[in-house]
Amino acid sequence: MGFTAINPMRFKGIYMKTKTLGELAEYVGGRVVGDPKIAIKSASTLGRAGEGDISFLANRKYEKQVRTTKASAVIAGKEIAGASVPFLIAEDPYYAFMQIMVLLHGHRKHKKVGISSHTTISDSAKVGADCHIHDFVTIADEARVGDGCIIYPCVSIGRGVQVGNDCIIYPNAVIYNGCRIGNRVIINANTTIGEDGFGYAGHKGIHHKIPQIGIVIIEDDVEIGACCGIERGTLGDTIIGQGSKLGDLVAIGHGTKIGAHCLLVAQVGIAGSTTLGHHCVVGGQVGIVGHINIGNNVMIAAQAGVINNVPDGKVLLGAPAIDAEQGKRAYSMIQYLPEMRQNIRKVEKRVSALLEKPEKS
Amino acid sequence: MGFTAINPMRFKGIYMKTKTLGELAEYVGGRVVGDPKIAIKSASTLGRAGEGDISFLANRKYEKQVRTTKASAVIAGKEIAGASVPFLIAEDPYYAFMQIMVLLHGHRKHKKVGISSHTTISDSAKVGADCHIHDFVTIADEARVGDGCIIYPCVSIGRGVQVGNDCIIYPNAVIYNGCRIGNRVIINANTTIGEDGFGYAGHKGIHHKIPQIGIVIIEDDVEIGACCGIERGTLGDTIIGQGSKLGDLVAIGHGTKIGAHCLLVAQVGIAGSTTLGHHCVVGGQVGIVGHINIGNNVMIAAQAGVINNVPDGKVLLGAPAIDAEQGKRAYSMIQYLPEMRQNIRKVEKRVSALLEKPEKS
Amino acid sequence: MGFTAINPMRFKGIYMKTKTLGELAEYVGGRVVGDPKIAIKSASTLGRAGEGDISFLANRKYEKQVRTTKASAVIAGKEIAGASVPFLIAEDPYYAFMQIMVLLHGHRKHKKVGISSHTTISDSAKVGADCHIHDFVTIADEARVGDGCIIYPCVSIGRGVQVGNDCIIYPNAVIYNGCRIGNRVIINANTTIGEDGFGYAGHKGIHHKIPQIGIVIIEDDVEIGACCGIERGTLGDTIIGQGSKLGDLVAIGHGTKIGAHCLLVAQVGIAGSTTLGHHCVVGGQVGIVGHINIGNNVMIAAQAGVINNVPDGKVLLGAPAIDAEQGKRAYSMIQYLPEMRQNIRKVEKRVSALLEKPEKS
Repeated sequence: MGFTAINPMRFKGIYMKTKTLGELAEYVGGRVVGDPKIAIKSASTLGRAGEGDISFLANRKYEKQVRTTKASAVIAGKEIAGASVPFLIAEDPYYAFMQIMVLLHGHRKHKKVGISSHTTISDSAKVGADCHIHDFVTIADEARVGDGCIIYPCVSIGRGVQVGNDCIIYPNAVIYNGCRIGNRVIINANTTIGEDGFGYAGHKGIHHKIPQIGIVIIEDDVEIGACCGIERGTLGDTIIGQGSKLGDLVAIGHGTKIGAHCLLVAQVGIAGSTTLGHHCVVGGQVGIVGHINIGNNVMIAAQAGVINNVPDGKVLLGAPAIDAEQGKRAYSMIQYLPEMRQNIRKVEKRVSALLEKPEKS
Repeated sequence: MGFTAINPMRFKGIYMKTKTLGELAEYVGGRVVGDPKIAIKSASTLGRAGEGDISFLANRKYEKQVRTTKASAVIAGKEIAGASVPFLIAEDPYYAFMQIMVLLHGHRKHKKVGISSHTTISDSAKVGADCHIHDFVTIADEARVGDGCIIYPCVSIGRGVQVGNDCIIYPNAVIYNGCRIGNRVIINANTTIGEDGFGYAGHKGIHHKIPQIGIVIIEDDVEIGACCGIERGTLGDTIIGQGSKLGDLVAIGHGTKIGAHCLLVAQVGIAGSTTLGHHCVVGGQVGIVGHINIGNNVMIAAQAGVINNVPDGKVLLGAPAIDAEQGKRAYSMIQYLPEMRQNIRKVEKRVSALLEKPEKS
Repeated sequence: MGFTAINPMRFKGIYMKTKTLGELAEYVGGRVVGDPKIAIKSASTLGRAGEGDISFLANRKYEKQVRTTKASAVIAGKEIAGASVPFLIAEDPYYAFMQIMVLLHGHRKHKKVGISSHTTISDSAKVGADCHIHDFVTIADEARVGDGCIIYPCVSIGRGVQVGNDCIIYPNAVIYNGCRIGNRVIINANTTIGEDGFGYAGHKGIHHKIPQIGIVIIEDDVEIGACCGIERGTLGDTIIGQGSKLGDLVAIGHGTKIGAHCLLVAQVGIAGSTTLGHHCVVGGQVGIVGHINIGNNVMIAAQAGVINNVPDGKVLLGAPAIDAEQGKRAYSMIQYLPEMRQNIRKVEKRVSALLEKPEKS
């Protein structure tokens, strides 16, 4: 694309440190198989890794690549037969990989901009210590922002909103009046929190807007992707539970409560007044109807449509969603429908022929 | 989450009035069963209501809760046997609930900010009386904004856009050049109106952009959710009919026309050049192909995929969408496919055995 | 809606030129059937066209309309029997229509605003010649914007971002640090590029954020719709290939690579680490799982769910996605499931009856 040659690492915002494999093993509480003095500068996938990279095996699907990788070391749960690469053996290899990524690369660095003079903060709003508020941000009356928050350009924080400590709010995110954001919450760009719930009373052919007096509560350690919409509740509040993570373009209906430590992948839609337990995993583009209860530790495969209550621990797939074990076979058989229908007709004809066959006398 | 103790009501932006049950009944044209002097301050769900709350029964599913609710009164279509709570009997309980919500709580109050000096309004643009234009708004050349509009921060109103009277445009919404917004329209945050339609002419492997010369017309009393995208038309216009309400993350294709008083729930996608009649209800995540006609009063269940014209009054579900009555049974039978296939094989074998059975001689 | 009477053409931003049919034919390398002196001012659909309009027939479905259109001329691949309208015969009628649209109407005209003084451009950022940067834009440290770019209000360009030449970035689009945008790229409003990938390592019930050190690379001539979210990669980069076009509300996962000249219709979601070849067409609301490879020239029908690798040239539909030829019949048979199940039972009973029938003796 004809860019001037520059140091790509610098522009990626990557600040690398070099560690030995032994140091990394000690850091993650693992052990080394091979030379602990090998220098590790960065992490990469098995397929792309080269000299100085550490890679990881968290999915057995990629086991074969461990034997051919050019990585200087591989994090794994156990040695892989036939692989000559040095190993960092860790109990939970993906977690160890995360720890090493944080150690070597760190999370995004935010420039210390202080409070921009091109921002509008109401006199009745309060902003805590060590905050960095970029240009063109608006913080409305009686809003409170805790300590150590980073608020990027063009963010709009409505009247009476409360934001906890150490939050990061990316550009153009909008928080409507009265909503409450916990500590260490990350809200990505162009996301909207606290818009009115989709609530209308139809009467003689006209839809009359119902005031939405609930708020949205985002608990501690939640991350919300880009371009999400989380509606405020009509009467009760909409809640995103502690430690839950939402992907991009997720839509949450009014009064819905997501438990703690859930994962909602991109484009999930959950209608209003539904309750999810804790530690649920909801795949991309899943739709969940309103007014149902979903238990704890429920897993829902991508694109599923959930229309009934779900007990704890269930694994579901399909639209309508059914037990995954059963559903995997059932949905994969839709392709045989033409054949099945034909076979039914054939066997019907054969039976009819049998029945019509004149009895031997 | 460790917030300083504050009056939550204040930060929710709720301004409450107290009314007696009798006053409320008179207001909605209903009648009281019980003590009309009971004081009502707020509304709540049957499950959460307490002293001073009025609740409502609009769905028979919740009838049992009427007998145990702690609400001070319940709006219902008729008395519920076994319930000792006072009733406000109304012909259309949900509509009465809406009226009471508006009376007790009102809709969102907007601060009277006037025209901010940190906004950019073109000299050739016109802004009506009693408008409140927040910071960092841009209103481009020849745009017109009617009277009594509220335009929140970082909204962008393109060249020649026309906005009617009493509209509310929430932060970061974008209206591209030339689009027309009616009166009393509400556009939620981060929504985009009038971006180019997805129109390209493929030629020798390259997609060539086709100028999109239509506009988007949003008629009176429409509300559009957060993070929606409504494309302008290629040749004709894209129209959202009077009184229609769109949820969050809805995508409307170029030249599509939505009739009056439709409800489109979150994440609906309608491709280009399709026509919807009036009073249609389209469930969440429904997809509708382009170039088809959907009649009036059509209801489409969540996640359905509509690929053919639909006559008036139809109720559809499934992907592909079929008649709901039939579809409810049909789609719920996908789970039996493995069993069905096995049964076909079994019966085939039995018939083959029968046919091969040597005739008695 | 009570707008003051104005010239609608002017407010649509349409700047029309008049050409003769003969001039147009010469321009697109076609030939005229009829009077080449007919004046053509604008283009329209067959159904809506009037005096002075040229229309086109690119889809045989609309052939009948050619006989009744009021257009002054029709672009088509061949003469239509029974039609008396003058023709512009072109080898690729839709491409010729596009060329004529560009000639008569042109693409959106952008006001030459120069570099607004209400924008914040870092001292270490570089902006090329002939750029037009609107109000309330932020361009962070070390970012580079090429020549001839139009950047609309409230756009946020992160640290070290590189934007090529002749790009158009519509209001409120956000580009996170380090991402690279090619030449002639169009990014529509409220789209987010380069937010962190949805990557967490679960450990003892807590989801730990994994640093996302890849970037997003948007190659030349790409257009991206409104309200899209394109995640940066965890280790590798997310790539949108040259000339590809994405509709509105599209979600692209971390590390996914879209080949050249693909079309991704609105609300498509592609999970992380998936690869698409070139010239793929992905219908609206399609979901594609992560870590798979999709070949070149693959077509995927709207709402399909793709869960396995796909070879070159395949046409798929359904969720789960199967071969379109087979899938069209198979998915349309879901409606017969109740009947099929009943028929299986009937034939089973008949066979049982046959088997139980006492043998004649």
